[in-house]
Amino acid sequence: MPNASPAPVTTPVTAVPTARAAVRALSNSKIREVANAGMGRAGVLPFWFGEPDQVTPEFIRQAAIDSINAGETFYNQNFGIPPLREALADYTTRLHGATTPDSIAVTSSGMSALMHVFQALIGPGDRVVAVTPLWPNLIEGPRVLGAEVLRVGLDFDARRGFHLDLDRLLEALTPATRMLIVNSPGNPTGFTLGREEQTAILAHCRRHGIWILADDAYERIVFEGQGAAAPSFLDLAHRDERVVSANTFSKSWLMTGWRLGWVTGPAGLIEDIGKLIEYNTSCAPTFVQRAGVVAVRDGEATTRGFVARLKHARDRLHAQLAGIDGIEAVAPAGAMYAFFRVAGVTDTLALCKRLVAEQGLGLAPGIAFGPESEGFVRWCFAASDANLDEGVARLKRGLAR
Amino acid sequence: MPNASPAPVTTPVTAVPTARAAVRALSNSKIREVANAGMGRAGVLPFWFGEPDQVTPEFIRQAAIDSINAGETFYNQNFGIPPLREALADYTTRLHGATTPDSIAVTSSGMSALMHVFQALIGPGDRVVAVTPLWPNLIEGPRVLGAEVLRVGLDFDARRGFHLDLDRLLEALTPATRMLIVNSPGNPTGFTLGREEQTAILAHCRRHGIWILADDAYERIVFEGQGAAAPSFLDLAHRDERVVSANTFSKSWLMTGWRLGWVTGPAGLIEDIGKLIEYNTSCAPTFVQRAGVVAVRDGEATTRGFVARLKHARDRLHAQLAGIDGIEAVAPAGAMYAFFRVAGVTDTLALCKRLVAEQGLGLAPGIAFGPESEGFVRWCFAASDANLDEGVARLKRGLAR
Repeated sequence: MPNASPAPVTTPVTAVPTARAAVRALSNSKIREVANAGMGRAGVLPFWFGEPDQVTPEFIRQAAIDSINAGETFYNQNFGIPPLREALADYTTRLHGATTPDSIAVTSSGMSALMHVFQALIGPGDRVVAVTPLWPNLIEGPRVLGAEVLRVGLDFDARRGFHLDLDRLLEALTPATRMLIVNSPGNPTGFTLGREEQTAILAHCRRHGIWILADDAYERIVFEGQGAAAPSFLDLAHRDERVVSANTFSKSWLMTGWRLGWVTGPAGLIEDIGKLIEYNTSCAPTFVQRAGVVAVRDGEATTRGFVARLKHARDRLHAQLAGIDGIEAVAPAGAMYAFFRVAGVTDTLALCKRLVAEQGLGLAPGIAFGPESEGFVRWCFAASDANLDEGVARLKRGLAR
Repeated sequence: MPNASPAPVTTPVTAVPTARAAVRALSNSKIREVANAGMGRAGVLPFWFGEPDQVTPEFIRQAAIDSINAGETFYNQNFGIPPLREALADYTTRLHGATTPDSIAVTSSGMSALMHVFQALIGPGDRVVAVTPLWPNLIEGPRVLGAEVLRVGLDFDARRGFHLDLDRLLEALTPATRMLIVNSPGNPTGFTLGREEQTAILAHCRRHGIWILADDAYERIVFEGQGAAAPSFLDLAHRDERVVSANTFSKSWLMTGWRLGWVTGPAGLIEDIGKLIEYNTSCAPTFVQRAGVVAVRDGEATTRGFVARLKHARDRLHAQLAGIDGIEAVAPAGAMYAFFRVAGVTDTLALCKRLVAEQGLGLAPGIAFGPESEGFVRWCFAASDANLDEGVARLKRGLAR
C-alpha cells in the first residue's frame, strides 16, 4: 500500500516543469533519431554507433567476476584504486614518457573523464575552440557548463581526405580562448594530427595559456606509421602544463559497456578533479576497475588484434566504396569509421532514415557531427567481412533508388 | 619506447595550471582528513564512512556475474535498461503511488542522480536552500554549477533531538528560490520529516514554483511508524510537478560499491536528464543494472533484514552512549548514524583525529556537515555488536584523557 494519496494541487503551477534553458537547448542525438526510424525492423545492420561488435575478452571479464565473488562491493577511492592508477601510469609512461599515478584520475567512462575536465576548467561564457566535424558530446559537454564553442572545420578533398588548415586554427585560438578540444584520431573523420601540427599548436597554446584537451579515445587505433599510438600531445608536453588527455577502455580493449575511463593531466588539476569525482559519481566500481587493471597489464595482444582487424575492415570497405558512383571516400589514418561524401545529397538525416527503413542499413548522418559535414555519412567498420559486404550491397541498392 | 621527448617550454607559463576558482573553492572532505590521520594504524574501527559493513547478498552478485558471462558488455540506453526502469516504476508505485517508467532515469550512483538534477535545474547565481546539517555533497554539488546555497539549520535539544523550525524554513523559501534540498531521513542527523511538515512545505513550494529535491537514500531505513518507507514527497506530489527524488541502491540493498541510483521526476524533466546522462556517463553498465533488477524485485527481505539489524545496533549503541558523561545523544528515527554532542568540545575535527590516532576509533567530525553541527560527532552504526561495544570502550578511554 502506498503511504498516501497525492494532495490536491491548490494553486495552479505557473509553467510546465522542465530543465533550465541551457539544458533544453542541448541537442538530441541525430544518430538516435535514425535508429528510431529503424525500430521494429528485423535484420538491420547496425553500423551507426561507434562500438566494436565483439564481446569483451574472457580474461578481462573473469577479473571482474573474481572481484565480485571476492566480495569487493564497497566504496573505493575517488581517484581510482591504486593498482589501476599505477597500471595506467606505467602504460602512459610506455606510450608517451614519464607519468606518475598522481597525474592520473580514473573515471566512470571516457565521457565522464571529459565531463570532469569540462567542470574543472570551463565556466559560463568561456570561449572553447573545437576542431570539427566532431563527436557531438565534445560540443554539448562544454555547453552544459555555459561555454561558447567555436568550430574550426577540417577541409576535405577526395584526394587527401580530411586535413587541417593550421593557420586558420591558430587564428581562432585567441588569447581569450580557454580551451582547445582535439580528437585525434578523430570521430567521425579519422583525421590524425601530425607531429609538426601538434608542435605548432602546443607552442601557440603555451604562449597564450590555453588549455589543450585531447580526446585520445582512438590513440591506439592507427593504421599508418610504426608507433604503437598516434602522435600525442602527451609526447610533447610536460605533465605539469596545460595539457589534459581524456581516455577510455572502450575501444582499445573492447570494453564499451564497462564505463571506465581516465584523465591524464597536471597533478594540481587532478587533485581538483578528485573533488569533482566525489560530487559526480564518487568512484567507479572496484570490480570494473579490477577488469581495467588486467586489460591495461595483459591486454596488448587484444589491442593489436583489434587494430589489425580494423585495418582489414577499413581496406575491404574502402575498396568497395571506391567502386560506387557518387561516393567520395578516403581511407582514414585512424579510428574506426568510414566518413564519406555522397554526391548530390543535402539531407543525410533523411537519407539515413530511408536507408534503414528501406534497406535495413544503419548509418549515421554527417549532420550529427556538425553542419560542416552535411553531405557525409559515417559507417563504423568494426564489423565482420560478411556484414560489411552485405552493407555495401544494401547501400548500392539504396542509392540506386 | 615513448613516441618522443617533451618539447622545451620556450615561453614561461603564466600561472600554475589549476582548475577554475569555483572548483578550487569546493571543500575537501573533513572525514577524509580524519581518515588520513589514522593511516597506517592497524585495527582502526571505521565508523566514519556511511557504509554498511556487509557484502552485497550473493543472489544480487550472481545476477551481475551471469550477465558478464552472457557477454552483456555493450552500450545500453541513456535512461537505463527497460527492465530496470520498469522494476523501479513498480517499486515506486508500491511505496508511493502510481509511477510509470518515463518518470524514472537510471544513473551511475545516487550521487550521479543528484548531480544530474543539479545540472538540469541549477545555473549560476541560483538560490538554493538546504536543510542542515547535511551530507556535504548536497551543498557542494550545486556550487559546482554556480549556485548560492543558503543553509537552514535544524534545532537540537537533548530531549527531542533534531527538529525543524518550519516557519524559519518557509521564510527562507522566498519566491526567488530555485530549489529546496531535503534529505529525510537525513545524514548525519537521522532527522525525518513528518507528514504535516511535508504537506506545508509542498504547498508553499507549489505556490512559489520552487523545485523540491528529496534525497531519499535512506527512505527505507526507518525505525518508527508502520510504513515500509519514511513519509515522502512522492506520496503527496503528482509526478508532473516540481518534485524530484534522487535515490540509490547503496543502502537499501547493501550495494555501495555498485554505483547505481535513479531519479524520479516529471517526464519532461526526465527527458532532459536523459540528454545530460549522455554527456556525463552515457549509461550504467548493463551487468550492474541486471544486479539492480534482481535487487528491486527480490530484495525486500534484504532491506527488511538490514533495517532490523540497524534498529538493534541503534538501540544498543544509544543505550551505552546514554551512560557516558558529557554526551547528549538522541536515538534517531531513521538512517544509520548516531549524531551526538560532546560537552565542552569546540573542535571536533581535532577530537576525531585524536580519537583515531590514540584509540583507533574512526568517527566523523560534526564540522564536516556544516558549522551548525560543530560540537557533534557522527558514528555509523551499520556494524556488529562486538565492534560497537569495543568502539564505546575506546570512546570512553579517549574522552577520559
